[in-house]
Amino acid sequence: LSEGELDFIAALRAMAGDPAARGLADDCAVLPFGDDMLVLTHDAMVEGVHYLAGQDPADVAWRLVATNMSDLAAKGARPVGVLLSYQLNGGEARFLDGLREALAHYGAALLGGDTVAAAGAQSLGMTALGRATHVPVPGRDGARVGDGVYLSGPVGAAMMGLEALREGRVEEAMAYRRPVALVEQGVALAPVVSAMMDVSDGLLLDALRMARASGVCLAIDRMAVPIAAPEARRDEALRWGDDYQLLYTARGPCPGFRIGTVCDGDGVLVDGARPDGALGYTH
Amino acid sequence: LSEGELDFIAALRAMAGDPAARGLADDCAVLPFGDDMLVLTHDAMVEGVHYLAGQDPADVAWRLVATNMSDLAAKGARPVGVLLSYQLNGGEARFLDGLREALAHYGAALLGGDTVAAAGAQSLGMTALGRATHVPVPGRDGARVGDGVYLSGPVGAAMMGLEALREGRVEEAMAYRRPVALVEQGVALAPVVSAMMDVSDGLLLDALRMARASGVCLAIDRMAVPIAAPEARRDEALRWGDDYQLLYTARGPCPGFRIGTVCDGDGVLVDGARPDGALGYTH
Repeated sequence: LSEGELDFIAALRAMAGDPAARGLADDCAVLPFGDDMLVLTHDAMVEGVHYLAGQDPADVAWRLVATNMSDLAAKGARPVGVLLSYQLNGGEARFLDGLREALAHYGAALLGGDTVAAAGAQSLGMTALGRATHVPVPGRDGARVGDGVYLSGPVGAAMMGLEALREGRVEEAMAYRRPVALVEQGVALAPVVSAMMDVSDGLLLDALRMARASGVCLAIDRMAVPIAAPEARRDEALRWGDDYQLLYTARGPCPGFRIGTVCDGDGVLVDGARPDGALGYTH
Repeated sequence: LSEGELDFIAALRAMAGDPAARGLADDCAVLPFGDDMLVLTHDAMVEGVHYLAGQDPADVAWRLVATNMSDLAAKGARPVGVLLSYQLNGGEARFLDGLREALAHYGAALLGGDTVAAAGAQSLGMTALGRATHVPVPGRDGARVGDGVYLSGPVGAAMMGLEALREGRVEEAMAYRRPVALVEQGVALAPVVSAMMDVSDGLLLDALRMARASGVCLAIDRMAVPIAAPEARRDEALRWGDDYQLLYTARGPCPGFRIGTVCDGDGVLVDGARPDGALGYTH
C-alpha cells in the first residue's frame, strides 16, 4: 500500500468512531438493528487490478459475490442480500449468468444498486448484507494467549488455479475462477471461536492482521498448514490469497486444521522466526 | 441510456424477485430486519460523468453523501450509516474534509467500505443505510387518480450553480456544489403522501417514472412549478436534476407546492400536452 493510501485509511478509521464500524479493522460492520444484528460489508474490484482484463465476466461476477459472502462467513452471518455497483463494458450477458448462479448458491437476494456507463477499466462494487447467527459476533481482536490457531482448509489452490488460467487450462482453474465462501462453516464456528477472519490476501498477512487486532503473537507451525500446491511451493502458498479459507482461534478442541498457537508478543512467527519478505498481497 | 444498459437493467430487474428490492424501480430497497424496517441504497459516481474532472474533492464527497441521503429522504427514512467505495486519485485530504462535514450534517456514521488504487477516471460508490420512520414506506407506485402532485421546493438552482462553477464563480455555485437532501421533510411527509421520490434526474423525467410505476398520468401545471432560475429558462429548469427536491402525491392538503394533479392515462402532461424533447438527464 502506498503512503497516501495508508494515510487515507488511517483518516477514515479516525472518522469511524461508531462501535458498529469496528474501527474499519474487521471484515464487516456489525450493527444492532431492530432486535436483530445486521452484518454489512462492501468490496470493490477493478479490472486489471483485482481480476484479469479479458477474464470471463461470469467468473468475475461469481468472485465479486464470493468475496463479499466470505466476509459474512467470517462473522458467522447468513447472507440476506446484495447491492451491485456495475460499470458497463459489453460483457453484461455473461456477467448476469455468473451473478445469477452465485446469488442462487448463497441464497442472497439482489436488492438494488447502480449501473454506470464510463470509459476505462471496469470498476465493480458490491455491498452484502447478512444476519448474525451468534452474538457476540466474532471479530479479529479476540485471540488470547494459549488459544489454538486454526485454518478451515488448504491454501494455495487459487494460486495454482490462476496459473492454470493464465496458461489456458481453464478447467483446472476452478479454484481461482469460482472460489467458494465458507458460510456454513462460519455459522458453525461462530459460537466456539475467540477470533475469526477470512483469508483473502494471504495466510501470513491475514494472521498478522489478527495478531495486531488482538495484541498477541500468532506462532504458526509451517508444516501444519494444509496446502493445495506442490510441497516446493509451500512458502508461496502461505502468502497467497483468494482461497477464502477461514482463519480462527479457539480454546480447546475445534473443527479444522490446527496450525499454531497464540503467544505473548506481537506479529507472526513461522517455526519460531519472523517470516521473510512480503506476507501476502495488498491491493 | 444505451440499448445495452437498458437490457442489462431489465435483466437485473427480472432477477430481483425479492419484494424488498421493489423491482429495482424505487429509490431504495426496503427490508424488514428484526422488528424494524431497513432502507438501503447505493449510488455510484464517475469523474467526468457524474462530477467535473478537477472539481473540489470536498464538494464531490458532499455530493456523494447527499445523493444517497436524498434517496433515504424519499422513503421517509432517517440515516444510520454509510459504506464508502473509494478510488485514490490524490485528492484524499479534501475528500475527507467534505466527507466528514456531510456525515456530520446528516448524523450518519461511517461504517465500512473499501479503498482501491487504480489508474483512470475516479470511480466512487456509497451505500447508505437508514431506518424507516413510517410504515408502509412510501414508494413511487402509490399515486392515485385525483391526488395532487407536489414539489417540496424550487428546481433549477443546481443548473444555475453548475453554470456559475464552470465560469469560476465558485461562491455562487453552492446549490450545485453542496446540495442538501431533505431528510426532515421526507420524514414529515411519509405519513401523508401516496407516493414519493426525489428529483435527481429532472422533474419531468422523474415525474414520468412515478407515472409509470403507478400506472397513472401526472398532469403538471407549468407555471405552478417553483423555479430558482430566470423565467426564460423555466423549461430547462423542469428538465434539470441535482436539486434533490422531493416529488410526491397526496390526497387533500399537504405541505409544499402543488404543481399538478394525478389523472387517468399514462406518462406526463405539461399544461395538457406531451412535453417535447428529453425530459431529463439519464446517466
